[in-house]
Amino acid sequence: MSKKDLKKEENEEVVPQEDIQVEEAINEPTELELAQAKADDFEDKYLRMAAEMQNIQRRSNEERQTLQRYRSQDLAKKILPSIDNLERALAIDEMDESVRKGIEMVQESLTRALSEEGVEEISSDGTFDPNFHMAVQTVPADDEHPAETIVQVLQKGYKLHERVLRPSMVVVAQ
Amino acid sequence: MSKKDLKKEENEEVVPQEDIQVEEAINEPTELELAQAKADDFEDKYLRMAAEMQNIQRRSNEERQTLQRYRSQDLAKKILPSIDNLERALAIDEMDESVRKGIEMVQESLTRALSEEGVEEISSDGTFDPNFHMAVQTVPADDEHPAETIVQVLQKGYKLHERVLRPSMVVVAQ
Repeated sequence: MSKKDLKKEENEEVVPQEDIQVEEAINEPTELELAQAKADDFEDKYLRMAAEMQNIQRRSNEERQTLQRYRSQDLAKKILPSIDNLERALAIDEMDESVRKGIEMVQESLTRALSEEGVEEISSDGTFDPNFHMAVQTVPADDEHPAETIVQVLQKGYKLHERVLRPSMVVVAQ
Repeated sequence: MSKKDLKKEENEEVVPQEDIQVEEAINEPTELELAQAKADDFEDKYLRMAAEMQNIQRRSNEERQTLQRYRSQDLAKKILPSIDNLERALAIDEMDESVRKGIEMVQESLTRALSEEGVEEISSDGTFDPNFHMAVQTVPADDEHPAETIVQVLQKGYKLHERVLRPSMVVVAQ
């Protein structure tokens, strides 16, 4: 046995040179495979972005509609105490008739302005609803006022569309 | 000359069969070229859409900011006549002191609410500016009131940030 043959036997596990080359050829992507992978990659990115853009546009539309719908919320809230004051003034009996007319006109004008922007008085006759009413006082229920019904409104509540600007302050039978 | 040769001569313009095949091979894109074209196409679409999305987001932000900035415009405009009426009432001399106090309170409260939303009275002392003032009357200019200056304000004007809600109605010297 020559020295060379001996060495060969010692290295029986070694993969023949030719096979290595074949394996490398399999692992190394071809130009075509690279191009296809790039095409797939950008197609995927494109489709994801198209979907994302649709979402962004939808959200942006929804947000704009909400902003539009509730745009008067802050100013409306700040005007409510003025309407309260005007109504309190109108409750005074001994007032000059022309002054009363003037105050009524302003009160109606403010209420109409709010109504045109979607602000409505909260209905407070009937059953107490914690979503719209705040019970600031309770009285014992009787035949005329069963439990959980509103006996008296101390301050009107208002809502803008379905959003409560402030609840009505009520006396509830219990 | 054989019949076949004659036919050949008649059809001199005909491209040799071999050349046609070469040309077809050139026109027909290879699988690699198709993949590369597809990759380029989607890369282009992806980049365009990315740019478009940035534009949409920028525009949407600008639009949201504008909506937010001028959200109180409509309600504010509708409240101005009420403030006019309250101010007119306060100009009446013979009014009960408690009623006057009440009207003053409402007038101040409404003006403060508007101011918190960015509504300000238009300054009307000094030079007439058609962007902010409407001349409803003119008087001859004199030493005290040079031409183009405001002599009197008949109705206050208001602006929301830099937008005029309504101009002030003024008397101008001419």
